[in-house]
Amino acid sequence: MSIQPFARVAIIGIGLIGSSLARVLRRDGLAGEIIACARREATRRKALELGIADRATVDAGEAVAGADLVVIATPLSAYAEIGARIAPHLAAGAIVTDVGSVKEAVIRDLRPLLPAHVHFIPGHPVAGTEHSGPEAGFAELFRDRWCILTPLPDADAAALARLTRLWEQAGMRVVTMDPDHHDKVLAMTSHLPHLIAYTIVGTATDLEESLKSEVIKFSAGGFRDFTRIAASDPVMWRDVFLNNREAVLEMLQRFSEDLSALQRAIRWGEGDKLQDLFTRTRAIRRSIIEARQA
Amino acid sequence: MSIQPFARVAIIGIGLIGSSLARVLRRDGLAGEIIACARREATRRKALELGIADRATVDAGEAVAGADLVVIATPLSAYAEIGARIAPHLAAGAIVTDVGSVKEAVIRDLRPLLPAHVHFIPGHPVAGTEHSGPEAGFAELFRDRWCILTPLPDADAAALARLTRLWEQAGMRVVTMDPDHHDKVLAMTSHLPHLIAYTIVGTATDLEESLKSEVIKFSAGGFRDFTRIAASDPVMWRDVFLNNREAVLEMLQRFSEDLSALQRAIRWGEGDKLQDLFTRTRAIRRSIIEARQA
Repeated sequence: MSIQPFARVAIIGIGLIGSSLARVLRRDGLAGEIIACARREATRRKALELGIADRATVDAGEAVAGADLVVIATPLSAYAEIGARIAPHLAAGAIVTDVGSVKEAVIRDLRPLLPAHVHFIPGHPVAGTEHSGPEAGFAELFRDRWCILTPLPDADAAALARLTRLWEQAGMRVVTMDPDHHDKVLAMTSHLPHLIAYTIVGTATDLEESLKSEVIKFSAGGFRDFTRIAASDPVMWRDVFLNNREAVLEMLQRFSEDLSALQRAIRWGEGDKLQDLFTRTRAIRRSIIEARQA
Repeated sequence: MSIQPFARVAIIGIGLIGSSLARVLRRDGLAGEIIACARREATRRKALELGIADRATVDAGEAVAGADLVVIATPLSAYAEIGARIAPHLAAGAIVTDVGSVKEAVIRDLRPLLPAHVHFIPGHPVAGTEHSGPEAGFAELFRDRWCILTPLPDADAAALARLTRLWEQAGMRVVTMDPDHHDKVLAMTSHLPHLIAYTIVGTATDLEESLKSEVIKFSAGGFRDFTRIAASDPVMWRDVFLNNREAVLEMLQRFSEDLSALQRAIRWGEGDKLQDLFTRTRAIRRSIIEARQA
């Protein structure tokens, strides 16, 4: 399906996700002009060096002036300030979207700030790596991944269709979802796994030195996978947990109960209980392989 | 360094690890004859079909007769029975080793059963995938991984050197370690990560159906890595937890305390605590990359 290019795209926060989207826009000629907004001078200079932005500015208000697409791709804690800063400068009919991993909080923080003459469509391209910054991005990051849009009930159908086509052009499969449901699903598939990975790597960090050095040396047995996840951007993830608190605590509570049950089974030598669970979890892996997500 | 081939190698349990070792022996001409022992007829037939064994038998005693190398590669719960079965048939001077993920329990179970005229050297090639069975093996499995040997104080130096060279020939870096220390290190690097992965995938399995199907669909955000780990062999892992109980419970206790602290930080919105931890865990990942284990 053909896609109508944007005249001017403002990307607020040109990190892993923002810069990857900029690369897609460049690759496919989807933006007449790309404006990057970043707080740090080094980030702005890098974006210009990489050729993924035509202009770079520290001022979000300046960045969005005249843009027909605005993509907020910063950590969630910056959203409210950005919303206030861009609101007076947004062009009528502009699409305003984001890439944040939490959606209810985004709607709560941004919606009241935005003028009625823009199309606000919250989004979440479920893609990423453990690397950060504009140099970590790549156009193929989104390929074959899901993009979840959580449009509000009164969303403009044409704007939604246009944003959908953009993410499809990036290689994504796009679905729409209720923001509350999004936050619960992601709490389980992404937020809790990250929390657990951060925790276990932290636990290892606190081991006495002789054990710790060998944990690093012999990390290939499973721990290594956790360290990769736990190398993800600290500020982004801090904000995810603070902004999806209820859903994360709910899933964490379930996990803790299940872990206690397993702990008890180990302590009392209940091999059958262990084997039953370990057999059940194999089936989930098969489901994921069948769903082509492995 | 050249390696003296074995005249006859008995591999008790011809699954992922056993069959991978058999492939190395074949590839490099390190065994005059390979005898596979497996309980199930289908496994024995598969081993013969794959050409990784010259003979296959259900009888461990028969398998080890005349062997100068015996490798036990079954789940840990089978060790005691295997030890009793093979003891009367072991040739004088034979090297008896294993590949189990726990070492103190192996020594406790096997040592009293084995005759004084064999060289018993417990071992653990730290390598694996989530797949099981003789068809899942491949000779390159061991490449650039660590092999930990836990020889007893009275171990024969020549036998230890010969076994070391065998694993080096398979591509491994070989170290010796105290069995107690091995069990603690592996509890952290391998056993606890597997336990946690099994738990979180189990937690997801118990979600109401509408959430569960979407957890599978959107698994790419971190959960997918856990499902791969949690697809590992159920019996093997049951036995690991039952046989390394103290060390696993100790590491699990530390992890649970740390997780509770994070849970509290999320509940009370203590962003600094979260960010501090997430920043520290990045450093561990860098250490692992520097240690060439990533």
